[in-house]
Amino acid sequence: MQQPIAIFDSGVGGLTVAKEVMRQLPREKIIYFGDTARAPYGPRSLEEVKEFTEQIVNYLMTFQPKMIVIACNTATAAALEHISAQVSIPVIGVIHPGSRAAISATKTGFIGVIGTLGTINSGAYSAALKQLSPFVQVYSQACPDFVPLVERGVFLDQEAYEVAQQVLAPVRSYPIDCLILGCTHYPFLTEAIQAAVGPDVKLINSAEETAREISTILYNKGKLALTEDLPVHEFFCSGTAEIFQQIARQWLGEQIKLTPVLWQVSRMM
Amino acid sequence: MQQPIAIFDSGVGGLTVAKEVMRQLPREKIIYFGDTARAPYGPRSLEEVKEFTEQIVNYLMTFQPKMIVIACNTATAAALEHISAQVSIPVIGVIHPGSRAAISATKTGFIGVIGTLGTINSGAYSAALKQLSPFVQVYSQACPDFVPLVERGVFLDQEAYEVAQQVLAPVRSYPIDCLILGCTHYPFLTEAIQAAVGPDVKLINSAEETAREISTILYNKGKLALTEDLPVHEFFCSGTAEIFQQIARQWLGEQIKLTPVLWQVSRMM
Repeated sequence: MQQPIAIFDSGVGGLTVAKEVMRQLPREKIIYFGDTARAPYGPRSLEEVKEFTEQIVNYLMTFQPKMIVIACNTATAAALEHISAQVSIPVIGVIHPGSRAAISATKTGFIGVIGTLGTINSGAYSAALKQLSPFVQVYSQACPDFVPLVERGVFLDQEAYEVAQQVLAPVRSYPIDCLILGCTHYPFLTEAIQAAVGPDVKLINSAEETAREISTILYNKGKLALTEDLPVHEFFCSGTAEIFQQIARQWLGEQIKLTPVLWQVSRMM
Repeated sequence: MQQPIAIFDSGVGGLTVAKEVMRQLPREKIIYFGDTARAPYGPRSLEEVKEFTEQIVNYLMTFQPKMIVIACNTATAAALEHISAQVSIPVIGVIHPGSRAAISATKTGFIGVIGTLGTINSGAYSAALKQLSPFVQVYSQACPDFVPLVERGVFLDQEAYEVAQQVLAPVRSYPIDCLILGCTHYPFLTEAIQAAVGPDVKLINSAEETAREISTILYNKGKLALTEDLPVHEFFCSGTAEIFQQIARQWLGEQIKLTPVLWQVSRMM
C-alpha cells in the first residue's frame, strides 16, 4: 500500500499546497484535512492553534502517512517545532520553503512578507529569513481581511481586487523586489495581489515552494512514490461540506472525494 | 569549529554552485575542489568519472564536511548513488534539484535539457524527470563545445554567442517552455544561451536550485550554520592555478584563497 502525504490547514488554504503536490508529484497520494469548523486560525492565540494542530496531527497519523505537511502559516509558526519533536516522520511547514525561495529570488535583499496577524506577530518569517542570511531586510504586513474572503469563495470577484488595493497600499511604498505570500490562502488571490503591488514585485507562492521541498525531502529519504497507477486523494473537513466542496472543485478543477468528520475535541498525544 | 560544505567539480563549473551557496547561505563555510588537471569530464567514460569522484570525495572527507556537493552533472550521473552509500553525511548532486525546479516551472510539461555528452547519454535527467511526473516530455541535447569555452575563460566574448547560436539551433525547434542548464559550467554562458533560445524559454539554473536544496536539507537536519562571523572559504585545484584564479575572481567578484594540490592518483575507499 502506498503511504500518503498528509496535508492540513485551518480551511481551504492548504488546497493551494495540495494542488501543487498534485502537479509536481502526481504519483503521490494525498490525505487532506481542513479544519473549516474552526477557521480562521489567524486571529487565535498561538497556544490555541498549537492545541488544534496536535489534535489534527493525531487524527492524520491514523492514516499512517509518510510525511505531515502543516499547510498553514499560522499553525507552522505555532507548532512546527513541537510537532516535529512528537512524531517520527518528517513534518514540513510552509514558512521555511517560502523564505528560501525569497532568498533565492531577491536581487536587492529587500523582502516583503504578508500573512495573518498570528503569523506576522510571531516574527517567524523574519527569524527564518535572518537565520539564512544576515544581509536581508524584511518588511512585514498583516492582512487579516484576506482569509475570510477566500473562505467565502470570493477570490476572483471585484471585491477581492478592491480589498487588495486597500490593504496593500502600505506595501507599495516598501523598497522590496519580492513579496512572500505568507499564508496558504493567498495564492487564491494572486491576480488581485499582483495588481495591487504592481508588476515589478515578484510574488513568492509558498504553496509552490512547499510542494518542491516535499519533493526534495522525500527524494533524499528514498520515499518518493514510484507507482504507475495515479492515486485517489481523500479530503476531510470539520465544518459544512458545501462551501469546501465548491471551492475545492473550483481550485483543483475536478470533483473531489470529501468526507465531513465529526470533530472530537479532546487532548491527545 | 564550523563544519564546512564540501563542493567539487571537474573544474570551474562548480563555482556557479559555490557562488549561489555564498549568496543564499552566507554563513556557510565552503571547501571547494576543482579537478582542473583532468577536466573536462564530459567526454570520459562514466566508470572513469566514478573513480575520480571517489578519489575527490576521499580527499574532501579529510576536511570533516557536513555535506558533500557533487557540483558536476557528469559526476552526479556517474557516482551520486555510489558515493551516497559510502559516506554517512548527505551527498547532493545537481541533477535532481534542476529537475524539480523544471517540474515546478513548466506550464506545458515540455522540458528541454542541455548537458555534456556523458550527462545526456546517461539519461539521468530524463529518468529523474519521469520519476517525478509521468506527464512531462523531455528533449535533450549534448553540447560538448560549451565546457572548453568556459574553462578557457571565454564566456562573455562574441565567440560564446556564436557557438551558442550554432550549437543550440536544434533546441529552437523544440516545443519547450523551460530549458535545464544541465551542466554547472553553463550558467557562465547564461546570456549567450538565452540569446540563442529566445526570451520565451525559461532557463533553469541548476546551480541556483542546488544551493536552495542544500539549504532545505541542512535546515531539515538542523545543520544550518548559525555563526555571526562570516566564513573564509578555501579553494583547491589539481591543475595550474592561474586560469582558475582568474575565472574565480571574475565570477565571484573577489579574490579567493586558492591552494593547488599535488594530486595523488590512487584508489581509495
